[in-house]
Amino acid sequence: MSRFLKLKLAYDGTAFAGWQIQPNARTVQEALEAAIAKITGEKSRAVASGRTDAGVHALGQIVSLSTDTSMEPDVLCRALNANTPFDMVVLDVCEAPEGFHAIRDATRKRYRYVIQDGPLPDVFARAYAWHLPQRLDEKAMRAAAQSLIGKHDFASFQASGSDRKTTVRTITDLTVQRRTENDFSKIVIEVAADGFLYNMVRNIVGTLVEVGRGNKPTDWPGEVLAAKDRKFAGMTAPPHGLVLVKVDYD
Amino acid sequence: MSRFLKLKLAYDGTAFAGWQIQPNARTVQEALEAAIAKITGEKSRAVASGRTDAGVHALGQIVSLSTDTSMEPDVLCRALNANTPFDMVVLDVCEAPEGFHAIRDATRKRYRYVIQDGPLPDVFARAYAWHLPQRLDEKAMRAAAQSLIGKHDFASFQASGSDRKTTVRTITDLTVQRRTENDFSKIVIEVAADGFLYNMVRNIVGTLVEVGRGNKPTDWPGEVLAAKDRKFAGMTAPPHGLVLVKVDYD
Repeated sequence: MSRFLKLKLAYDGTAFAGWQIQPNARTVQEALEAAIAKITGEKSRAVASGRTDAGVHALGQIVSLSTDTSMEPDVLCRALNANTPFDMVVLDVCEAPEGFHAIRDATRKRYRYVIQDGPLPDVFARAYAWHLPQRLDEKAMRAAAQSLIGKHDFASFQASGSDRKTTVRTITDLTVQRRTENDFSKIVIEVAADGFLYNMVRNIVGTLVEVGRGNKPTDWPGEVLAAKDRKFAGMTAPPHGLVLVKVDYD
Repeated sequence: MSRFLKLKLAYDGTAFAGWQIQPNARTVQEALEAAIAKITGEKSRAVASGRTDAGVHALGQIVSLSTDTSMEPDVLCRALNANTPFDMVVLDVCEAPEGFHAIRDATRKRYRYVIQDGPLPDVFARAYAWHLPQRLDEKAMRAAAQSLIGKHDFASFQASGSDRKTTVRTITDLTVQRRTENDFSKIVIEVAADGFLYNMVRNIVGTLVEVGRGNKPTDWPGEVLAAKDRKFAGMTAPPHGLVLVKVDYD
């Protein structure tokens, strides 16, 4: 009978065309499944908690896997790391309950988005932060973020053309903080929810940035939310500032 | 009459063959001098406070320059940044006293070296930290570092084959601290001195690592110092963990 395994992965999304296998593209799923096939001789399907886009990073992506191998989890972890590329690492492998499914069973996810706002770019953050030359008002962004916390219909913040059954999600945490790194000031936005619509974090960030720029008042994101229509929200922030930090399971 | 300018530079050393111009190599000096030539039409020589090696990074490299251009410093700074590659940035340009020389006039320099010690690599620190799979004893390293602080003959810590007139330098600060970054534990070594011999920081780090691994006792770096002979010191730590943080002038 097949075993179910839970894998924890970190990857630098810069040189990946995202998680999902695509023809003629270097993807995380392809690299992971190739390593599994090489070690176990099995063609297993790896299911990630969410399909990160090209350029999006992960510190704690969770993957479910069903396999017939009898390898111990820690032995499999070491073997995988000996067969995966330089920009990804398998942080942990453990046994999971029968039927474990990384998407369906996730109860909470946390993302981080980093903006570097100032005239000169931090050359060390090129691939990890959205550089905006104008200094943003993070206090206004923090105030504006409050209206998005809680259970709401986030239809305005999903990518146009999506067709999820329900667009209601619960944001349990949404923080906006300024910090200094490599002598450059940055704004770090962290958001946790029971689930996210496609591009939801990047659309929230793009909307908060409009407030930070002074183009919109602090109560505007609440109005965007109430409109339940993508065309009212701000731009989609670029992928390279985004990191999937953590996924929780019961 | 020529003006003297002081430039402050940051660069990611990963894709540079170091500071100094060399045939068939991409160097920081070459990129900077090419940008200056393009803007001013002059062939100026840029002198850096120290020639960083291939892979070594800088947050605050200082460069002196003599020029006939009448451009305002902030205009020149913007023009340079429009003509330099993606992995370097000119942080500041200001007027300097006549004869200002970035090497000769430096009174103090500060370097940082980052080690990531643990079985799994932080994929985000591949180019910025020395990854060692074994956990090091940073308390022992900190204790061992004390004997190097102060005015000493650092002949044991200079690259073999160097021929500096004097190998006496004064280390004013040498700290060893553990911190967590991207969920990975790291050891950060910072060292400030009135000057450094070639490879001195990387040789000090390689020597402290021997203590951190438990291969040598905490009083060993003091014995290495007393020997005044390179062959007694530890290995030269790799370049990519090293950052030139700051250079002071009177």
